[in-house]
Amino acid sequence: MQVYIEPIGRLINEFSKLPGVGKKTAQRYAYRIIDMPEEEARNFASAILNAKQKVRYCKVCGNFTENEVCDICKERDGRVICVVKEPKDVIALEKLHEYRGVYHVLHGVINPMEGIGPNDIRIRELLARVGEGNVEEVILATNPDVEGDATALYIAKLIKPLGVRVTRLSRGIPVGSEIEYTDDVTLSRAFNERKEL
Amino acid sequence: MQVYIEPIGRLINEFSKLPGVGKKTAQRYAYRIIDMPEEEARNFASAILNAKQKVRYCKVCGNFTENEVCDICKERDGRVICVVKEPKDVIALEKLHEYRGVYHVLHGVINPMEGIGPNDIRIRELLARVGEGNVEEVILATNPDVEGDATALYIAKLIKPLGVRVTRLSRGIPVGSEIEYTDDVTLSRAFNERKEL
Repeated sequence: MQVYIEPIGRLINEFSKLPGVGKKTAQRYAYRIIDMPEEEARNFASAILNAKQKVRYCKVCGNFTENEVCDICKERDGRVICVVKEPKDVIALEKLHEYRGVYHVLHGVINPMEGIGPNDIRIRELLARVGEGNVEEVILATNPDVEGDATALYIAKLIKPLGVRVTRLSRGIPVGSEIEYTDDVTLSRAFNERKEL
Repeated sequence: MQVYIEPIGRLINEFSKLPGVGKKTAQRYAYRIIDMPEEEARNFASAILNAKQKVRYCKVCGNFTENEVCDICKERDGRVICVVKEPKDVIALEKLHEYRGVYHVLHGVINPMEGIGPNDIRIRELLARVGEGNVEEVILATNPDVEGDATALYIAKLIKPLGVRVTRLSRGIPVGSEIEYTDDVTLSRAFNERKEL
């Protein structure tokens, strides 16, 4: 006799596909669904279909949108482009409510180990945008890791000759942390890139 | 401008309803859905609806089933009933492949603090089953906590007078653990309930 009846086994299997979800967690999620009122489960399922059907990528910046061009591209200052790896980085930056420019989502970073080269991410599209002429600054906001740095460097080399200002988010000791517990690489970086007060 | 576009916000909201899922995790799940091929997302949604529609409770034991009466109740030895709090406890016990009797799922335990009394869980149904006459043993497998113990005690008092053997899972030091690190209550219990070798 199998341990789970088929509909539950199938649901657990689906939940296991979510990132970081193992069998135990998937089981807990499945039980929650079964305990839900019918209508709530229906809403859950339809939210999945709805998101999958309506969400597309902005043809300009590559961010999520329901339309051909996203609201940020339509309404904001196109003279500054902030380049990020993924759409969720846009969310993180938008939460600050500080930046008024537009974005460019690369959908990945250069990673030779995984066979991802410059042509596999949206660098060409970025160059085309910059090439249109009214861009004044490109902010490279890829992650501060090996791949993010390499990608930023690669893009900087292509864009700088076009006479556009290229910047990168500053690295250093995170606000609120303690020097004693900061990892060596970050501390050394913060030391070497120290600022005049 | 809101941070998430509507279909993503809605999906994040749905995922947040799952147990232990906060905003960040829900966001990661939502992105995974959006990255899925269309068909995979469709399967996901249909697994939810399918589970919700097909899974019901066995009218005898209260465990999950697709039919009126579950396979365990239909096929197994009805002389021994193992009483558990929730369907997931059945799964845990079934994984051992040792027990050959049937189950009775209480769907809760007595918990005066939360206003759950004996009539709010499936104790009456258990008494009816035992009253039918061919039950020889009732194993009380509620959790070894205050509510589980109280519920077991309550049920034992009702069933023992019927001349049925009533047992409770043994408590003690978990296999593979160390005495040094065992909590006081468990250790004291293991000491007091020590067994003759």
